[in-house]
Amino acid sequence: MTYTSNRNKLTDVSRTLAKVAIGEEAADLLIQNGTLVNVHSGELIAHMDVAIAAGRIAFIGKADHTIGDKTVVIDAKGKYMVPGLLDGHMHVESTMLSVTEFAKAAIVKGTTGIFMDPHEIANVFGSEGVRLMHEEGQQLPLKVFTTFPSCVPATNDLEDGGATLEVADIQEGLQWDNVVGLGEVMNFPGVVFGDPKMFGEIEATLQSGKTVTGHFPSDDDRMLQAYLASGVTSDHETVTREQGLHKVRMGMHLMIREGSAWHDVKEVIKIVTEDGVNTSNISLVTDDVNPQTLVEKGHLNHVARRAMEEGVHPVTAIQMVTINVARYFKLEHDVGSITPGKCADILLMDDLQKMEPSMVITDGQIIAEQGELAVEFPVFTYPAHIRNSMNVKRELTAKDFKLRAANEQEKTNVNVIRVIENSARTEKMTAELAIQQGIILPDVEQDIIRLACIERHHGTGQISLAFAHGFGVKSGAVASTVAHDSHNLLVMGMDEADMAFAANELVKLGGGMIVVENGKVLAQVQMTIAGLMSEKTLPEVVKEVTQMDKAWQHIGCSMNAPFMTFSLTALPVIPEIRISNRGLVDVTQFKLIDVEIV
Amino acid sequence: MTYTSNRNKLTDVSRTLAKVAIGEEAADLLIQNGTLVNVHSGELIAHMDVAIAAGRIAFIGKADHTIGDKTVVIDAKGKYMVPGLLDGHMHVESTMLSVTEFAKAAIVKGTTGIFMDPHEIANVFGSEGVRLMHEEGQQLPLKVFTTFPSCVPATNDLEDGGATLEVADIQEGLQWDNVVGLGEVMNFPGVVFGDPKMFGEIEATLQSGKTVTGHFPSDDDRMLQAYLASGVTSDHETVTREQGLHKVRMGMHLMIREGSAWHDVKEVIKIVTEDGVNTSNISLVTDDVNPQTLVEKGHLNHVARRAMEEGVHPVTAIQMVTINVARYFKLEHDVGSITPGKCADILLMDDLQKMEPSMVITDGQIIAEQGELAVEFPVFTYPAHIRNSMNVKRELTAKDFKLRAANEQEKTNVNVIRVIENSARTEKMTAELAIQQGIILPDVEQDIIRLACIERHHGTGQISLAFAHGFGVKSGAVASTVAHDSHNLLVMGMDEADMAFAANELVKLGGGMIVVENGKVLAQVQMTIAGLMSEKTLPEVVKEVTQMDKAWQHIGCSMNAPFMTFSLTALPVIPEIRISNRGLVDVTQFKLIDVEIV
Repeated sequence: MTYTSNRNKLTDVSRTLAKVAIGEEAADLLIQNGTLVNVHSGELIAHMDVAIAAGRIAFIGKADHTIGDKTVVIDAKGKYMVPGLLDGHMHVESTMLSVTEFAKAAIVKGTTGIFMDPHEIANVFGSEGVRLMHEEGQQLPLKVFTTFPSCVPATNDLEDGGATLEVADIQEGLQWDNVVGLGEVMNFPGVVFGDPKMFGEIEATLQSGKTVTGHFPSDDDRMLQAYLASGVTSDHETVTREQGLHKVRMGMHLMIREGSAWHDVKEVIKIVTEDGVNTSNISLVTDDVNPQTLVEKGHLNHVARRAMEEGVHPVTAIQMVTINVARYFKLEHDVGSITPGKCADILLMDDLQKMEPSMVITDGQIIAEQGELAVEFPVFTYPAHIRNSMNVKRELTAKDFKLRAANEQEKTNVNVIRVIENSARTEKMTAELAIQQGIILPDVEQDIIRLACIERHHGTGQISLAFAHGFGVKSGAVASTVAHDSHNLLVMGMDEADMAFAANELVKLGGGMIVVENGKVLAQVQMTIAGLMSEKTLPEVVKEVTQMDKAWQHIGCSMNAPFMTFSLTALPVIPEIRISNRGLVDVTQFKLIDVEIV
Repeated sequence: MTYTSNRNKLTDVSRTLAKVAIGEEAADLLIQNGTLVNVHSGELIAHMDVAIAAGRIAFIGKADHTIGDKTVVIDAKGKYMVPGLLDGHMHVESTMLSVTEFAKAAIVKGTTGIFMDPHEIANVFGSEGVRLMHEEGQQLPLKVFTTFPSCVPATNDLEDGGATLEVADIQEGLQWDNVVGLGEVMNFPGVVFGDPKMFGEIEATLQSGKTVTGHFPSDDDRMLQAYLASGVTSDHETVTREQGLHKVRMGMHLMIREGSAWHDVKEVIKIVTEDGVNTSNISLVTDDVNPQTLVEKGHLNHVARRAMEEGVHPVTAIQMVTINVARYFKLEHDVGSITPGKCADILLMDDLQKMEPSMVITDGQIIAEQGELAVEFPVFTYPAHIRNSMNVKRELTAKDFKLRAANEQEKTNVNVIRVIENSARTEKMTAELAIQQGIILPDVEQDIIRLACIERHHGTGQISLAFAHGFGVKSGAVASTVAHDSHNLLVMGMDEADMAFAANELVKLGGGMIVVENGKVLAQVQMTIAGLMSEKTLPEVVKEVTQMDKAWQHIGCSMNAPFMTFSLTALPVIPEIRISNRGLVDVTQFKLIDVEIV
């Protein structure tokens, strides 16, 4: 059975709900005799029925009077009834899946609503990309709310993405149904120091009565307070207890993050378990999860479970992934609790500490049972140009990846991007490299590898070259079109012929990630949606990603999640040094620098 | 110095705030070294400064860097810094004062924002009356938010008020700045059973993204849940712990009321002090306070103090009159906490348990110190027709108050309105009364007194007559133009000549309340604004009301707040029996009945 939505606006069905409540009409669905997780009162309440009609909750309590001939009755004896989980901040692109495929994986884990920031596709296809992902989300049993990307491009003069978003785009996007705010405002210096674009975006969002979500990774208290005074109201970049406590005190909605790469719960949750802070303005989010994490650990249920493992009361943890999120986005009339009038997004669970739903209901329909989907999801096909996003000027050759030295000599000093495992930061280092026939060579001994960034959106043929340290790659090459934030074609390799081969093969694939060695493809993840997301299923993608992990190891890299570290070497907003299609970027000075130190 | 507003939209001043936060510009005002009541974290935090610029909070913490040559510095050592108090539901008309005079009294007690429902004036002057009170509120240092009255008239076919409000009026009113929702939806049966007007009003409010406030005095759980499913989200009529707990569990925003006549805190607060329920969706409100209460006990500070006396932690009690209210009305970006960006509405207090502010600051301006106003309030003058609301057809005579018996006999049985001290309810009783010259007589021995309701809005000359029991009045007469909800001219007396005298004198006064005896005025409260509010100051009104209390006693009534019980005898929506301009109303059947039982 292919899913069709039973989502109704409250005022369209409130008459029906009233009639069911007072016993004049029968419920569509009745969940009987479960233990209600009441996120408003903060209690567990045994022996409760929940009567559902027209996709919403009509009555709670002893609800025999709502049973009619056609009422489907579910026995919830021994089970908890939990409001559907809401992820207050995430990027679907990080899952490498389409919104549909992601939704399948997330919903069986109990996520019934997300607030996605389609920041990555926005850098490739601008407003159109945002609209397509948003539209894909609207036909799913998962409620997909969008916060409109705020910082596209991430920098003004250091890189070229596929598209930019202006204030007018954001104003327009804020009018779409279920666009509920502005996506993480990463350009916090811009906000603090009065960038007119940032100001215009925030003003447009506040005028439309929506929520401005934030991103504040700094320790500078004065900048934090200036940032808050702009109208930004949340942050998900907090990694210390002190900063977490301070942000709550400052009235910021604190999103504590547990993604595939960021494990912030352990430290930051101490503000709850040790400082005993009021939790009503705190939520738990995933931000970025990769496909393996979805399979191995789950989605938001894993984050709630992590909070419980650290000592948070189950009801409190559940509040942080339900009502607190709903209230932050001013959607508590629709989602976030099991109370009369709300959308019937309900999970049945045997064990709150395990957080594995045995049944997932959204809008009153059973979507998953025992971890398996109970409905077919509708198919969404992206337009051809979105699925053909590789616009590289010409086939690449080994020569394209050779960096010519400034002077004729045997050795030279170069600026190198030093990457750090499990960190988004890089460090600027220098190294002495040999020159052969005028070309600066990489050096396996020193772990210095060639890096290239090829403009892939406008066919300009632009290529920049640099060096990286820290990957441990000894042979072959890798390439990726996931290359934050502009998502150009990023290539790394010891061997320039393999670099050209990797790049050309990835162009043929239509985007994604690839590992090659000696002219052979070792592994590839095909990502044809904007070069960012796969059109395949989660198991297929996990298989490809697993093979790619092995291929990385095969060519010498033993790093955790190397493709993520790799893709971030192109992100010129996080210190200290990055590569963009325009060249090597010193992020501490926000300017392009030469590779060679002459 | 006459007050002029320094209230600014956040986005109009966020640049200034940022500059002050980072030390580029100086603060206007700096409060130093106080103990911050942090309603977000739930903590008391010592040694905090609060820097203010452009009427909003720019920086919190150690804020020496914000001091400039012109910065006014206030030493808050030994004092608490409390967010300004917000009354989530009240009727200014109950104070008998203009909005301006009420604001003077409330603000010295720490109330810096109210959510008023100008329901009474709406019954007299409709949308125009609402707009005038709302406009009066907009020029004051008190933030006056309005919830647009939803139930005018209270009944369709049982009475005639001065005006009605239709869905279109509400749609228009919702567009005005600072109209933040729909006023208490008293017609809960209408909501539950699908009254199109109620539905239209709620839909209009939800469509504008605003809050639908409720009024649910019933114990019927099925009706409650149907009511909630309509989109109504709060209630302030709860008098029992059980109902309070249930409403919180159902996701309702529970407003616990402590007014002059309703003392609900003692009982209902047990859900916090004994059941330990989560308090984030609970607030404290006044609903109706009379002028003496304002002088003797205070305003919302008294309600918070009452909660503390019952064992609520001071920070929790303060949350229930600040951030919880702000969040319920989706205004937490402007009010409800002392955090960066918010309006600088701050109270300094020596003692949280006493809740008496030594200084009141709104929008960064010192408005009151040591219980005295520090600024002159601007004058608001209502238009002439609002101040001349008495439209009675002709002078009244004793004959008008004589109820003629149906048949020639010596005695007859009549239906009587039995009033109950300190209760809004009445009971239907019957009594045997003597007939003299064809007129049914009142009976001092039985405490049965004459009651009359004279249409005063449209000059129709309509008069209805009935009898009441329970006031203990033995002589003279009383009259009032405060006569819920239609506010016709209500008269009561043993002596019909005194009744005519009272009515005529009150017409001359332009409305209000009066007590007379033997052709002499014993006391009067002149209320020329729509016949509902005085144009005098609080001390003057208290003096008049005190004299009137004595006059009530003088004519035999020892009841607590008799004028309130009296004014409610005309309210045909609360059981069991009332008088309207159309006649005697049996509220249990919602129909007009005969006085005489023939």
